[in-house]
Amino acid sequence: MTEAPILHGGGIAAAAERYGGRPEDWLDLSTGINPCPVDLPPVDPAAWHRLPDQHRLAETRRAAARYYRSPHCLPLPVPGTQAAIQLLPRLVPPGRRAAIVSPTYGEYGRVLRNAGIPVDPIGGLSGVGDERGLVVVVNPNNPDGRCHPPEQLLQLWQRLSAQGGTLVVDEAFGDMEPDQALAPEAGIAPGLVVFRSFGKFFGLAGLRLGFVLGEAPLLSRFADWLGPWSVSGPALTIATGLMGGDGEAIRASIRARKAALDAVLQGAGLTVVGGTALFSLVEHARAADLHERLCRGHILVRSFDYDRRWLRFGLAADSAADARLSGALAGFGS
Amino acid sequence: MTEAPILHGGGIAAAAERYGGRPEDWLDLSTGINPCPVDLPPVDPAAWHRLPDQHRLAETRRAAARYYRSPHCLPLPVPGTQAAIQLLPRLVPPGRRAAIVSPTYGEYGRVLRNAGIPVDPIGGLSGVGDERGLVVVVNPNNPDGRCHPPEQLLQLWQRLSAQGGTLVVDEAFGDMEPDQALAPEAGIAPGLVVFRSFGKFFGLAGLRLGFVLGEAPLLSRFADWLGPWSVSGPALTIATGLMGGDGEAIRASIRARKAALDAVLQGAGLTVVGGTALFSLVEHARAADLHERLCRGHILVRSFDYDRRWLRFGLAADSAADARLSGALAGFGS
Repeated sequence: MTEAPILHGGGIAAAAERYGGRPEDWLDLSTGINPCPVDLPPVDPAAWHRLPDQHRLAETRRAAARYYRSPHCLPLPVPGTQAAIQLLPRLVPPGRRAAIVSPTYGEYGRVLRNAGIPVDPIGGLSGVGDERGLVVVVNPNNPDGRCHPPEQLLQLWQRLSAQGGTLVVDEAFGDMEPDQALAPEAGIAPGLVVFRSFGKFFGLAGLRLGFVLGEAPLLSRFADWLGPWSVSGPALTIATGLMGGDGEAIRASIRARKAALDAVLQGAGLTVVGGTALFSLVEHARAADLHERLCRGHILVRSFDYDRRWLRFGLAADSAADARLSGALAGFGS
Repeated sequence: MTEAPILHGGGIAAAAERYGGRPEDWLDLSTGINPCPVDLPPVDPAAWHRLPDQHRLAETRRAAARYYRSPHCLPLPVPGTQAAIQLLPRLVPPGRRAAIVSPTYGEYGRVLRNAGIPVDPIGGLSGVGDERGLVVVVNPNNPDGRCHPPEQLLQLWQRLSAQGGTLVVDEAFGDMEPDQALAPEAGIAPGLVVFRSFGKFFGLAGLRLGFVLGEAPLLSRFADWLGPWSVSGPALTIATGLMGGDGEAIRASIRARKAALDAVLQGAGLTVVGGTALFSLVEHARAADLHERLCRGHILVRSFDYDRRWLRFGLAADSAADARLSGALAGFGS
C-alpha cells in the first residue's frame, strides 16, 4: 500500500469545482512561485524539434555552475526537483533509517515511506544520530521559513558521510540568499546532495526544471536512473539564457511583492509567523474559517492537515491582486 | 556495476568534434524523428508559469484517448517514453525473467539488466514461455521495421497475464498505421502496457513527451512512481492542441519524405532491408566505410554495434538535403 497523494498547492481546478468560478478567474496564492514570470528568452526551433543533444546539456550545466556559484560540480538538470525526490530511496543504505527536519514539504516523507524506508520526523539538526542513512533539510524551510546556518549543515554532512550516510539540502527557496546556500560546497566530497528549483524563483514552474548538485559519481547515478533526455530542450535553452544574469532584478521584484503581501496581511490584523521571500505563513486560531472565506472569494491559499492554525499565502502579481486579497480579508477577526 | 550508456542517434556534437564542422551545419539522419516539425500551437503563458494543474492534465489525457483510439483508458503523459522504460523493472515479479524481441531499441535491455533482472533476447513471439515476467515487443520494430500482427500480440498478452506477467508493446513508430496498434485494446484487462511516443511523429522530440496506456491501477502506479507534475505545462498544452487533428497531413508529408529517401538510397545502389515510415535500414558489407564517408561529408546516420553491416537512415527535411545525401553517396560501392 502506498500513501495517499498529498494535496499540494496549485489545486485551482478542484477549488473552482467546489466553490464556483472559472479556474482562470481565481487568485491562486497557494504556491510559492514568483508571480511575475521573467520574459522568456527566444527558443531555438531545434530545441523543440531535436532530442536535447549533449552540447545543449553541457551548456546548461556550465550556466548552472556559474549561477549557483558551484565551482566543484556541474549541476545535473532534472525534470523538476520532484523527479529527484522520487529517486532518494536509492541513496539510503539497506537497513538504515531516514530523518526529515519537519514539518516540511510532504513529498520527502511520502516517497521514502512508500519505498519501505523508516522515516523519523525530527525537530532540528541537533541530536541527529550519525547512523542515519539519509537526512533531509529544506533550507529555508517550507512552510515556516526556518533557516539553518551553513556551518551547522556542513558539520552534519561530515558526521553523516563518515558513516556512509547522505545529507540532502533542498534549496528550492534559496535563490534570494545565495550567501546562505550550500550549493557552493557541493561536489567537494561524498555525502551531500543539494536540490535547486529553477521554476519558483524565475516564475516558470510549468517548465519542470530543477538541478541536483553533488559529487560527479553521484550525479552520474542520478543521470543513469533518469535515463537520457530527461529534461526538455526548451527548458534547457530557457534556463541557459536566464541563468546568465545575476538575478538581482528578479530579487528586487520579489522583495517588493513580498512587502506588499505582508502589508496586506498586517493591515488585516493577521500574524505572520514565518515564511520566505516567496510566501508568508499566517497563524490563526480560526484559520479554517479564513480559508473558507477566501475560497468563497475565489482566492486559494494553502492549508496544512498537520497544523490547522496555519495558512500559507503566496505572492500576488500586482497591486490589483493585493487589493482583491485585502478586500476578501476585510473585517475577518475584527 | 551498471552497463555503459548506449550510443544513441542524436550525437551530432560528438561527431562534429571528431570530423569537424559546426553541429548546426551537419545533416542529422541518425534519429527516427519526423524532420518536418508541425507548427506549434500557441502556448498559453500560464502553461510556462504555473505548475501543470489537474485540469490541464485531464484535457491532455482525454485528447490522447481520442488520438490513440483508446476508449478503455486515459493515457498517462510521461516525460518521454524513456522515463517509463526506467520504471519497467518494477513490473517484473521477483525471480521472473524478462524477454525482449531483439534486436531492438537498446534501452530496454540496459535498464532491465541494470536492475538485476535476467533478460533473454528472443527472435520472435513464437515459443515465448508463459512464465515470463515481462516481454517487450517494439512494434513496428526499430531498426528493422518488423511488424507483429495484433492478433499474435493479443494471444501473447493473454498467455502472459494468466501467469501474472506483463506484455509491453512499444508503438513509438505506430502513428503511421493506427489500424495495427494495440493502443485501442489497452485498459481492458491487466497485463498489457502500451508505450506511445509523441515527439517522433510530430517532429517535436525536444518536448520530451510520451504516453503510457494500460489498466487504470497500473497507470496510477506509474503516476505515483513519477510523482506529480512530471510533464511540463507547455508539453501538455502543445500535445492537447496537436492531438485534436487526425494526423493525415503529417502522414502524407512523412510518406513523401520516406519515398524521397528511398529513391536516393536506391539511386546510390544501396539495399534497403527494413525500416518504418520514419527511417530506412540499409545492409552493406562495407557499412563502416560508408558511415565514415558520410561523416566526412558531415552527415550522421546510425550504426549498430551488434550488426556492423547495418546503417539506419532517418528522413531528410527537404529536397536540398536529399541532394546532399545523394552527393555524399555518389560513387560508393560502384
